[in-house]
Amino acid sequence: MPTNAPPASPMDIAPLTTLPEWRRFVQAAQACPGQADGLDLIEAPGLTLDASGQRHAPALLAAGQALLQARGFDAQRRRLLAGGIVNVTEHRAAWHTALRAPTAPDDVQAERDRMDAWVRRADAERRWRHIVHIGIGGSDWGVRLAVSAFGYAGTWREARFVANIDGHAIEGGLAGLDPRDTLVVLVSKSFTTTETLENGTRAREWLRAAGLDPARHMVAVTARPDRAHAWGIAPAHVFRLWDWVGGRFSVWSAVSLTTALSVGADVVAGLRMGAAAMDAHFAQAPLAVNAPVRMALAGIVNRSILGQGSLNIAPYDSRLVNLVPYVQQLDMESLGKSVDLSGRPVGVPTGPAVWGMPGTDAQHTFFQWMHQGSDGAPVDFILCSQADHHWPSHHRQLLANCLAQREALMRGKTLDQAREECLAEGLAPAQAAALAPHRVHPGGRPNHLIVLPRLSPYALGALLALYEHRVFTQGVVWGIDPFDQWGVEYGKVLARGIVQALSPDADAAAEASAHDASTRHWIGLLRG
Amino acid sequence: MPTNAPPASPMDIAPLTTLPEWRRFVQAAQACPGQADGLDLIEAPGLTLDASGQRHAPALLAAGQALLQARGFDAQRRRLLAGGIVNVTEHRAAWHTALRAPTAPDDVQAERDRMDAWVRRADAERRWRHIVHIGIGGSDWGVRLAVSAFGYAGTWREARFVANIDGHAIEGGLAGLDPRDTLVVLVSKSFTTTETLENGTRAREWLRAAGLDPARHMVAVTARPDRAHAWGIAPAHVFRLWDWVGGRFSVWSAVSLTTALSVGADVVAGLRMGAAAMDAHFAQAPLAVNAPVRMALAGIVNRSILGQGSLNIAPYDSRLVNLVPYVQQLDMESLGKSVDLSGRPVGVPTGPAVWGMPGTDAQHTFFQWMHQGSDGAPVDFILCSQADHHWPSHHRQLLANCLAQREALMRGKTLDQAREECLAEGLAPAQAAALAPHRVHPGGRPNHLIVLPRLSPYALGALLALYEHRVFTQGVVWGIDPFDQWGVEYGKVLARGIVQALSPDADAAAEASAHDASTRHWIGLLRG
Repeated sequence: MPTNAPPASPMDIAPLTTLPEWRRFVQAAQACPGQADGLDLIEAPGLTLDASGQRHAPALLAAGQALLQARGFDAQRRRLLAGGIVNVTEHRAAWHTALRAPTAPDDVQAERDRMDAWVRRADAERRWRHIVHIGIGGSDWGVRLAVSAFGYAGTWREARFVANIDGHAIEGGLAGLDPRDTLVVLVSKSFTTTETLENGTRAREWLRAAGLDPARHMVAVTARPDRAHAWGIAPAHVFRLWDWVGGRFSVWSAVSLTTALSVGADVVAGLRMGAAAMDAHFAQAPLAVNAPVRMALAGIVNRSILGQGSLNIAPYDSRLVNLVPYVQQLDMESLGKSVDLSGRPVGVPTGPAVWGMPGTDAQHTFFQWMHQGSDGAPVDFILCSQADHHWPSHHRQLLANCLAQREALMRGKTLDQAREECLAEGLAPAQAAALAPHRVHPGGRPNHLIVLPRLSPYALGALLALYEHRVFTQGVVWGIDPFDQWGVEYGKVLARGIVQALSPDADAAAEASAHDASTRHWIGLLRG
Repeated sequence: MPTNAPPASPMDIAPLTTLPEWRRFVQAAQACPGQADGLDLIEAPGLTLDASGQRHAPALLAAGQALLQARGFDAQRRRLLAGGIVNVTEHRAAWHTALRAPTAPDDVQAERDRMDAWVRRADAERRWRHIVHIGIGGSDWGVRLAVSAFGYAGTWREARFVANIDGHAIEGGLAGLDPRDTLVVLVSKSFTTTETLENGTRAREWLRAAGLDPARHMVAVTARPDRAHAWGIAPAHVFRLWDWVGGRFSVWSAVSLTTALSVGADVVAGLRMGAAAMDAHFAQAPLAVNAPVRMALAGIVNRSILGQGSLNIAPYDSRLVNLVPYVQQLDMESLGKSVDLSGRPVGVPTGPAVWGMPGTDAQHTFFQWMHQGSDGAPVDFILCSQADHHWPSHHRQLLANCLAQREALMRGKTLDQAREECLAEGLAPAQAAALAPHRVHPGGRPNHLIVLPRLSPYALGALLALYEHRVFTQGVVWGIDPFDQWGVEYGKVLARGIVQALSPDADAAAEASAHDASTRHWIGLLRG
């Protein structure tokens, strides 16, 4: 794998909207009726994808396959999975699949072994009653997700997460803990992330104030061991990341140390196995029954052809509360771009806003809008056939609510049906006529239903890889680089200047003059 | 106040798009340049609203005022604040402002006094080390918000929240608690909410299994004390709601019992005072300097004229992690409707999808999309001038990041600027030309900046009332009923049937035949 290199010269990619295959795909989608009353199931490792709630027709699927071919999908998928350069603007691989491969590269396997040994020793010694995991974005969400999924009823080791630069975050993260039995895990690929290093510094001060040696209580996960050593982390406490692992794909690395300590190394191993199985499915399954590919094609129809601006994720499992921000980061940081690899505008809307909340909470929060709002949103419903608790009536209610919301969104309710309902409830005809329009549901809202047998690490790993490959495939069709994130750099640069201007000793007048009137006003008021 | 009554006959309201005032508002918005480099500050109780990041011009403001007048805004605002019928389709008041009024109606004051006395006694006895708050949607988010805002560093009493019907939620909510020192707070306006009663039943069983008398460990907050009594809650443990309080406005009632026990009765009183001050501002301030009104007009421009599909809430304060779902419920359940009071389509897009996350977490999760995605979204930035922790450098970084992200979204970056940056970093001309398009930011993204002096209960109360009245005002302009929620009923009805069909003993074949092929398939597989 190449390490950092200057960006390549422009990659020559045809503008999407000039492709005849794109025009045919658009025509096929527009010719396709809304939901047909058929069953469209795709079996994949760890889960079943039900695409019955999306537009589907043989002609649309064929057009989608032709479109993928025109975009060189096969070659790009091979390049991804072989660790070739797929992050074109940064001239890097994005080889996260290697991190979970059953037979991994030697250095990956060595790091797995080191982590497992570390966890075994900590377990044997019954050490680290508290873990403070410090990381942000991709160094945070995946671990939070796994710990809330499998540690939902509490764990012997309490894991806390500190991400935000807001000082209240680290204050709350450390409050009430016994420093003698606390392990601090610092995660930063570059080991330059401001939030993580500042919060780490506070944690180090807190350990020192308790008379402890921070070197014994802190661990780092990073692609820059040199910087972690210089910062004061002992070499035996530094776990390795690689340049070819993007932050939003790093959950498959030693970033999962906190997961292993908190909910078990077998959970981490299970997540990897499920993801690896999905990788194999993605690599081998024919496109028509390839779950990530099918989700990607439906996503492109919804976003670029039907114009849906957002995608709602509705896991009907309260343990998956952190799935939404995980997928949000994965999807929006990857696909929130408007120019293709040649640097031209893509010409159609790309990545949607991804948002959501576990059901049934979501039903009492924003499903009103899903049913009767102006736009609504496509939904990915997710459920587990089997629960891990002992109240079948709760699980039956949960499943029924998921299926019912989905059905209501698809089926809708006409004005006549609404009027008859009102009359059946005993309203007078004039009242029924007045109220009925408020009870109409347009219906026809697109959705996926993803069914896991139960929330095993294997199934969750497969689910995460499903989303990763869905995102990659959409990136291939749109012709964008899903692995860079140039848009987050600009704000960082501006922030450095404003931090200076806010310092009590700064020559703020000179700095502030570079800003608009409102920013100048607030810099003046907030300085000090 | 009237109690439940059949819906009124159709209310006669002019279609929005036929109004000359609407057409003039649209023209004024379209004629208005993007952000002008001016300062547009609106002072309100507890906070300052900076609207400089929205389209603003005297002509647009004048057109907005004329539009409000044409919609009978003055009369409707008076009716809202006086407890008149504003929930037209349900023929009810929505008099939540009475719950926080300094001089409240007698029965409201009596209930405040009862709650305060109850909390004082519990505090004096040092009872209830654990509180399990069971409610969903409006019976949940407001309390979660207040407890995470003011109890972010832990509290003597640990409050847990159980909302979802998913059995893992109540399992996790009770795990590890000492039932002898646990108070269960059940909140349901109707006292028929399935989630809340089922979870309450599990909590009751858990108390009984520990040999305790549930009547001594459970409290209810409801508009149907009769049902709570029948369920087994002692009359002295039942606090009252009123029919004229919507669930999403109920945080101002005894629903805050958990808040008072967890973070103090003074917090609850402060929240009320701040909200009441905002009510007075909303009632009296001239429209041009009326903060909720100005936010509403900007929201309508963004949504109905510029076509923005969503609204992002970005509180730069980690303690406000639950503000997003709170506003999400308030806004989307209120404005997620497409027909006006006459039952006609509104004719323009109404309520947006509301989503977000505290900054700086959001920057590492989806701000890439905000900066360079196809659509982006208007943002409400929220910050507190003063922090409550002791690390000024963290607070300076936090403020700088907020101002910098906002500035980047407004200012953008041109292709020329991006190319020069690349050259300054040492790239060859061909490489700079290839990379520059990936570093362009379109800019011009609309935003509000809301500044609180610090996160006091008063300021947070004012902030919540600001959002409430913004939502109400948008409802007036669109001509919809922001206080009903007919769209959530349909799924509930369908769920009842599917619960039956999923029962092992059901005549499932008969029931299932009413469903589409996919729903039938899953009912068959998941039954038992």
